[in-house]
Amino acid sequence: MSIRIAVDAMGGDLGPAVIIEGAVSGARTHGASLLLVGDTNAIEAALKAVEHNDVTLEVVEAPDVITMHDHPAQAVRRKPQSSINVALRLIGEGRADAMISAGNSGAVMAASLMVLGRIKGIERPAIASYVPTVSGKTLLLDLGAVVDPKPSHMVQFAEMGRVYGERVLNIANPTIGLLSNGEEPTKGNALVQQVHPLLASRDDLNFIGNVEGKDVTMGTVDIVVTDGFTGNVALKTAEGVAAMFTELLRAEIMTSLPRKIAGVILRPAFRSLRRKLDYAEIGGAPLLGVNGAVIISHGRSSAKAIESAISVARRSVEADLSGGIATAIANTSSPVDVAQPAS
Amino acid sequence: MSIRIAVDAMGGDLGPAVIIEGAVSGARTHGASLLLVGDTNAIEAALKAVEHNDVTLEVVEAPDVITMHDHPAQAVRRKPQSSINVALRLIGEGRADAMISAGNSGAVMAASLMVLGRIKGIERPAIASYVPTVSGKTLLLDLGAVVDPKPSHMVQFAEMGRVYGERVLNIANPTIGLLSNGEEPTKGNALVQQVHPLLASRDDLNFIGNVEGKDVTMGTVDIVVTDGFTGNVALKTAEGVAAMFTELLRAEIMTSLPRKIAGVILRPAFRSLRRKLDYAEIGGAPLLGVNGAVIISHGRSSAKAIESAISVARRSVEADLSGGIATAIANTSSPVDVAQPAS
Repeated sequence: MSIRIAVDAMGGDLGPAVIIEGAVSGARTHGASLLLVGDTNAIEAALKAVEHNDVTLEVVEAPDVITMHDHPAQAVRRKPQSSINVALRLIGEGRADAMISAGNSGAVMAASLMVLGRIKGIERPAIASYVPTVSGKTLLLDLGAVVDPKPSHMVQFAEMGRVYGERVLNIANPTIGLLSNGEEPTKGNALVQQVHPLLASRDDLNFIGNVEGKDVTMGTVDIVVTDGFTGNVALKTAEGVAAMFTELLRAEIMTSLPRKIAGVILRPAFRSLRRKLDYAEIGGAPLLGVNGAVIISHGRSSAKAIESAISVARRSVEADLSGGIATAIANTSSPVDVAQPAS
Repeated sequence: MSIRIAVDAMGGDLGPAVIIEGAVSGARTHGASLLLVGDTNAIEAALKAVEHNDVTLEVVEAPDVITMHDHPAQAVRRKPQSSINVALRLIGEGRADAMISAGNSGAVMAASLMVLGRIKGIERPAIASYVPTVSGKTLLLDLGAVVDPKPSHMVQFAEMGRVYGERVLNIANPTIGLLSNGEEPTKGNALVQQVHPLLASRDDLNFIGNVEGKDVTMGTVDIVVTDGFTGNVALKTAEGVAAMFTELLRAEIMTSLPRKIAGVILRPAFRSLRRKLDYAEIGGAPLLGVNGAVIISHGRSSAKAIESAISVARRSVEADLSGGIATAIANTSSPVDVAQPAS
């Protein structure tokens, strides 16, 4: 049986048409069936513009919509029939194996905790995403689920990242770095100085020490662990630099005719580069630590990004990511918070 | 009389020859005289390789060297004759107007506080640097002087940034953004949520609200305020992405002969782009809030970066940055720390 993916058709800045185009294309490419959740009229209108006879799909009505401006926790409670809530309940009811939303990410987190709940032993979920690197990809987490984590939360981020690395990326014993303002173990803010010895004391984690911002894109480690505030700033800074680079390069090429001609010859090279560095194209970031495969996509997701999110959802389900995290956490003695930085 | 700049000749990963080459070139270009501080033999050997008859310079002996591996505060106390300490004392003694070091930045900060002291009213100094943006430059601070600031420190970072913007960049009433994980005033970690209302309540600061990581390179605001931990991670992430972009572009171009030829035509365009985005070339980051013009350069500074640091030093002195900060702080009622985030 193919994997069944509930897609929040109402999420995303670009509207249902883009979401549905990407979902249908992703379902075809990655062999999934779809439950498209939202306003039935809007979904059916969007489906008219997309060839979808070869894809198994069902429309599931959800009359409410949570917007980007809604307060996440309040909206989730006040709009139980929102597309986010309904899509998550499809997992709870066993009708879907995974859920994808490019909507209000705070609401997706709040609703996931309410509808699916945390994996036993997990204190806080984390949002994890790849970032492109010189040599491949690095998993960065947390990207904003927990902006003021405790040290023990950060240790669990490392544990969940390891399961993702092993199960989805097939990296045995992936290397883990702690994002800091310097490589030396003494560097870091108070939080990092508390987390460092906790990670260093864990023989089961391949912790190589502190890493710096430049390591996020250098592929120095397989997994970079950080708090959700810093991770969010780092990811969006990287996005911004990549966008700036593209824009400045275009401006340089337009300054003369020979440059324009050379630019035409190099167009496929630029396109390939842009694909590698376009953070909106990465697609989906799994919300690790909840009971179910929940994939959070960028608000500005293109159809291509949603297609890629379908692939992330499929891999998360096939690898039984939630089950792997549950097993890993059950086998770990509970991490201990330390009140003071270790000397 | 020309501006007299004390240069720590022993700082920097690339050795005295590179520092001295850049300092001499910068002194010539920007009309400064030099005090080259460090091991006299090493400095004189380096000077033999550089044409410098047209530049006024003096060698000042400093027998000790603080390395990148030394503990900053301890090294500053145990090595009072280090090139960093001696160079800073030249400002204290009125023999130099500014000091530049590409050495151990923690030691430069500690020694600056010990030798020059804080400006009256300033609680913590901050390291500020430009970052390249699509439309020009944005000043980002703090970059690592204070990794766990109090809210009142962050307000002073904004005040010092404003003085820099007005006096050095000639921007009347520069716009200020607070780096966060979302633009909404409710977004942010606990620190940001405490700082936001403090900045919003200040009529004398042109505070436009929270900005995101992508805004650092989009030129959305003139000044981005953040804690030293996040600022350091953001700057180094940006550096890493720029380096990755350059490397991936080179690899794409090398895949075929037509692409290589087009690459040759575009070489000046790539060079111009690299210059705009090479963070090591930006040169110098002023340490704002100490009694004197102290410029911290990247450990990997090239000669070009040191030349650029001379320019930053000259502008800092001519603009009387320290005097401007002292005046601004004296005219401000002391900011109040809040214990809880404003609702």
